[in-house]
Amino acid sequence: MKETQSILEAAKRVSPLVNRLSTEEKNRALEAMAEALLQNKEEILAANRRDLAEAEGKISPVMLDRLRLTEERIGAMAEGIRTLVALPDPVGRVLRESTHEKGLCIRRISRPLGVVGIIYESRPNVTADAAALSLKSGNVCVLRGGKEAFLSSYAIVESIQKGLSSVGIPREAVQLIEDITRKSSVEMMRAEGYIDLLIPRGGAGLIRACVENATVPCIQTGTGICHVYVDEGADLDKALTVLENAKCSRPSVCNACEVLLVHERIAEAFLPRMKALLCDERKENPVSLRLCPAAARIIEGEKASDEDFDTEFLDYILAVKVVSGVEEAVEHIRCHSTGHSEAILTEDEKAASYFTSAVDSAAVYVNASTRFTDGGEFGLGCEMGISTQKLHARGPMGLEELCTYQYIVIGNGTVR
Amino acid sequence: MKETQSILEAAKRVSPLVNRLSTEEKNRALEAMAEALLQNKEEILAANRRDLAEAEGKISPVMLDRLRLTEERIGAMAEGIRTLVALPDPVGRVLRESTHEKGLCIRRISRPLGVVGIIYESRPNVTADAAALSLKSGNVCVLRGGKEAFLSSYAIVESIQKGLSSVGIPREAVQLIEDITRKSSVEMMRAEGYIDLLIPRGGAGLIRACVENATVPCIQTGTGICHVYVDEGADLDKALTVLENAKCSRPSVCNACEVLLVHERIAEAFLPRMKALLCDERKENPVSLRLCPAAARIIEGEKASDEDFDTEFLDYILAVKVVSGVEEAVEHIRCHSTGHSEAILTEDEKAASYFTSAVDSAAVYVNASTRFTDGGEFGLGCEMGISTQKLHARGPMGLEELCTYQYIVIGNGTVR
Repeated sequence: MKETQSILEAAKRVSPLVNRLSTEEKNRALEAMAEALLQNKEEILAANRRDLAEAEGKISPVMLDRLRLTEERIGAMAEGIRTLVALPDPVGRVLRESTHEKGLCIRRISRPLGVVGIIYESRPNVTADAAALSLKSGNVCVLRGGKEAFLSSYAIVESIQKGLSSVGIPREAVQLIEDITRKSSVEMMRAEGYIDLLIPRGGAGLIRACVENATVPCIQTGTGICHVYVDEGADLDKALTVLENAKCSRPSVCNACEVLLVHERIAEAFLPRMKALLCDERKENPVSLRLCPAAARIIEGEKASDEDFDTEFLDYILAVKVVSGVEEAVEHIRCHSTGHSEAILTEDEKAASYFTSAVDSAAVYVNASTRFTDGGEFGLGCEMGISTQKLHARGPMGLEELCTYQYIVIGNGTVR
Repeated sequence: MKETQSILEAAKRVSPLVNRLSTEEKNRALEAMAEALLQNKEEILAANRRDLAEAEGKISPVMLDRLRLTEERIGAMAEGIRTLVALPDPVGRVLRESTHEKGLCIRRISRPLGVVGIIYESRPNVTADAAALSLKSGNVCVLRGGKEAFLSSYAIVESIQKGLSSVGIPREAVQLIEDITRKSSVEMMRAEGYIDLLIPRGGAGLIRACVENATVPCIQTGTGICHVYVDEGADLDKALTVLENAKCSRPSVCNACEVLLVHERIAEAFLPRMKALLCDERKENPVSLRLCPAAARIIEGEKASDEDFDTEFLDYILAVKVVSGVEEAVEHIRCHSTGHSEAILTEDEKAASYFTSAVDSAAVYVNASTRFTDGGEFGLGCEMGISTQKLHARGPMGLEELCTYQYIVIGNGTVR
């Protein structure tokens, strides 16, 4: 097993070279990475079968399915890498330019961060995505995947490294941490001078461990307690459509709605229709409700506990609260949201404008589903995760968000 | 004495209101703050006299001078606040806009971070600057100044708060931490949920304490081990002019040059001229040299120790090293720089282009002095400090760098 420290040192060593790759070199490398995944699919599938056999009975069927690779899924990974070729290079863009009165040309130019560390959980396709996004943005990456997917990720990274070598790029541009104990995560969190940005992608425990231990810069991603507020001025048909989409189209993801807030003046009209639509027992996945006392006086359902308004269910469960108006909705969101995505349903421009100016979350929607918070949907082409913090990147992180900038100043013997 | 926690809670409480102030309200508040400083100058000067009396004999004359306020300096603080009125509001700018194929309007809009904490050392004018920059960017600020300047800072903040009250803005928009022990700094570093960004401005000890203890997002500012590299292709007259400016125009600041790197092929021509210009004993402040062995074979001077190449002298001292070319210069900078500012002197475009693409510091200069790394010089109008890290802000931090962004998405019942 390779020591984590030696992996970090190798990453730092090749970083100057990788950071300076041209657009053409990076695109050629992405093609080679995709091609290598396809060529090595037998080895990857074999490794995955060993991971699956080991995990069988230890993790849930849903998690097993996320872990499973097929020829088709490997094809999709390769395709995902190839889509990055067409995206513009985020490095070397002139972000701002000014001329100093003494004739200096001052340009702010985008640059790779350097070495990006990513700690993630069991889906092996994240390995390929993260490697490709890092490479296109000129960053070296150090990947630390979940232990259930270790052999699969290892096989994926080996293939990617073969692809890189075939076009003359050092294999160390993409590396996988081999120690899958907690020790290596902590080593990454404290790898000052080696890791320029650490992205933890996972549950609350991982995020907490990063906040407590990290001495390298981190971006927290992921948890989403997203709210949909149906205002007095809502068009109830639109509200039902948007709520159903936000809650039911894919409840296991972070941009799904977890809490419904309803204006007291329309609660009696809206809640029964909501219940009929979402909770119909004949549906494959009827939604189970957690009701505040006022909502429980209008429709039937389980009573909500306090925790229900601070829980990311990631399931067909919806907490419901009746509020006195947009101010109380905003206040509830301020106290309970994780800062991911919130929506207001209203035809009243004043209420919408108050909501968008007062709600401090990464994405705020008017008459649209929270499910749109996604790099692809926002036109970023792809994403490395969704930041729920305010520094550097907020919301979906695409290629530009994996860059920093630098001032390049050209003079002619110019002094201050 | 007010408890630090109660100050943080008050900051968080008024933050939604302050974050939403209009440009007009903020500019009116800045005028009122400037006016209040002038009106209360007697109280501020009296407080400053008490600080000075207490500090006399305990701190160096240079530090005593930095601590001293005069009527003129208070006037300059007020003037500094007023210059912010004319600068564009960094909040509410549309940074990016796209239309989703389903008709959604997706806009990325700049917003205040929320609550900004600033820990700084003894100069009392930082108090007024930081308060004004925070307010113009819509942020609440919590200031934690040095203990030597406490009474002065307290009087300044009291005046500013009077100004804020006079235009109907809560005093808690600008607050000073009253506990001046180490405890309050650590409380700020761990004020999760209260402080959105912490800016430590000070020496290596403070920065280190932040890296070790902070669980809130931080931006490190300040230390600058800046390099000037005189290439084989340099115009030696320009090189002398730029080096003298970089080293001698204000050696106590972070953008001053600390290390001179010289190409071996021009060392014999350049070093004697450099020494004659910078080290002339008849000058008021002749520079003292710390020479590598190769340089010591050409000119006389003290031998450099290894530490001299990792020291921010902030004084009339210059470490000198002869290198084999631009590659070695870049490599030396990679190992020893703090990532602040570096310059190459050369007429050779190839060398300049290699240097700017390979040196990973906040500002990289060709034929110009490192002394230009400054918010005012870079056209930002002002600055809160100079970031030497890569996340969020790099180089001088102005008003825009005190903001985050948010996606505002407008639909019409739109679902994914």
